[in-house]
Amino acid sequence: MSVVELLKEKIRQEGRVIGEDILKVDSFLNHQIDPVLMLEVGREFARRFDGTGITKVLTVEASGIAVALMTGLSLRVPVVFAKKKQPSTMDGDTYCGRVRSFTKEEVVEIVVAGSYLGADDRVLIIDDFLASGEAARGLIKIVRQAGATLVGIGTVIEKVFQSGGDALREQGIRVEALVQIGSLSGGQIEFLN
Amino acid sequence: MSVVELLKEKIRQEGRVIGEDILKVDSFLNHQIDPVLMLEVGREFARRFDGTGITKVLTVEASGIAVALMTGLSLRVPVVFAKKKQPSTMDGDTYCGRVRSFTKEEVVEIVVAGSYLGADDRVLIIDDFLASGEAARGLIKIVRQAGATLVGIGTVIEKVFQSGGDALREQGIRVEALVQIGSLSGGQIEFLN
Repeated sequence: MSVVELLKEKIRQEGRVIGEDILKVDSFLNHQIDPVLMLEVGREFARRFDGTGITKVLTVEASGIAVALMTGLSLRVPVVFAKKKQPSTMDGDTYCGRVRSFTKEEVVEIVVAGSYLGADDRVLIIDDFLASGEAARGLIKIVRQAGATLVGIGTVIEKVFQSGGDALREQGIRVEALVQIGSLSGGQIEFLN
Repeated sequence: MSVVELLKEKIRQEGRVIGEDILKVDSFLNHQIDPVLMLEVGREFARRFDGTGITKVLTVEASGIAVALMTGLSLRVPVVFAKKKQPSTMDGDTYCGRVRSFTKEEVVEIVVAGSYLGADDRVLIIDDFLASGEAARGLIKIVRQAGATLVGIGTVIEKVFQSGGDALREQGIRVEALVQIGSLSGGQIEFLN
C-alpha cells in the first residue's frame, strides 16, 4: 500500500472530527507518533522533491518535528525547527515570524537563530497540517529574512477548504500535500485524492 | 567511531557554554537537528534497553521529540510526547505533571491524553538533556498516573553536576546517559565518560 493510502486508512480509522474544521489525528501524527509511518512519509517527501537541491528542512515546533526529521533523514540534510517565542538561551541574531494558532486561538512569535539559515540554503518547509497557511507564511517570512531560497512546502494533511494551500500555490510556491481533505462537514471526512 | 565518541566530538566542536551551567548544542540536537546522528542515538538507546519489553517511548515537547522518535523507530514502538499546557483540542482524560524549566525560568504543565498510556505499557522516557531532573520527574508522574511500568530513562547528555540523574538512580530507576558532563565551570566542558 502506498504511504498516501496508508495515511488515508489511518485517518479513516483513527481520525476524529471536532466541529466543522478540526481533524484530530493524535494517535499517529501529533501527540502519539508512529515512527515507522513517519519514516515512510519522510521518504515520500524526499522522493517528490528529488533533484531540487534541498540543503535544509525547516519546520516549527512541536508537531512538525517528527515529519521534518524523517524528511531530513531521507534527504540527508539538517532539520531546523523554529521555536515558539524566544527562550532565554537563544541569543544573537534571529529571524522571526508571527503565527496565529488555529487550535489554540493565540498569536505566537516563531524564531530561528541566524546561524542555521543563510543565503546559500535551499529550504523545504515541512509541517503536519496545512490549513489557513498561517504557520507556512511565518516560516516563509523566516526563509526570506535569511535570504535563502524556498524550494517548496510539504504537508502531510492539507485541509483544502481552509484555502491556505491554494493561496500559496497562487504565489507560485510548490506545495505537496500527501492527503487532501475537501470537507469535514457533518463529521464526515471527504478526501480529494 | 561509536555514537558516544561522535557526540563528544560534536559537543567539543560546536557546544557553547553559557555561564556555569548551560551547554548550548543548538547546532545538532535541539534547534538544528542532525537526523543521521539522531538515528544513531536512537539505535544506541534501543541497544541498551534491548530485551526490556518496552511498548512506548515517552518524551516532552519540543526538544525531546527527535531523539524519542529515532528511539521509537529503532524499537518499533509508538512515541508519545507530553504537551506543554493543555491545548483546546485535547479533551477527555489526561495525565499531567508540572515541570520547572531551567532555561526558561517558568513552570509549565505537561499533559498526555489518557488514550496513549495505560497499565499494560512498559515505558522508556527519553530526553535530550538530564540536568536537575525536573522534566523526568514530571514524566515519571505521568507514567505512574497511567499505572504503566517505567523501564528506564535515556538521555543524550547528563549534566551530572546538577544531580538529577543520581537522585533518580537512588530511587532505583535505570538511567542511561550517552554523554556525562561533570562540570562546565570556567567555560570548560569536562566529560566523565
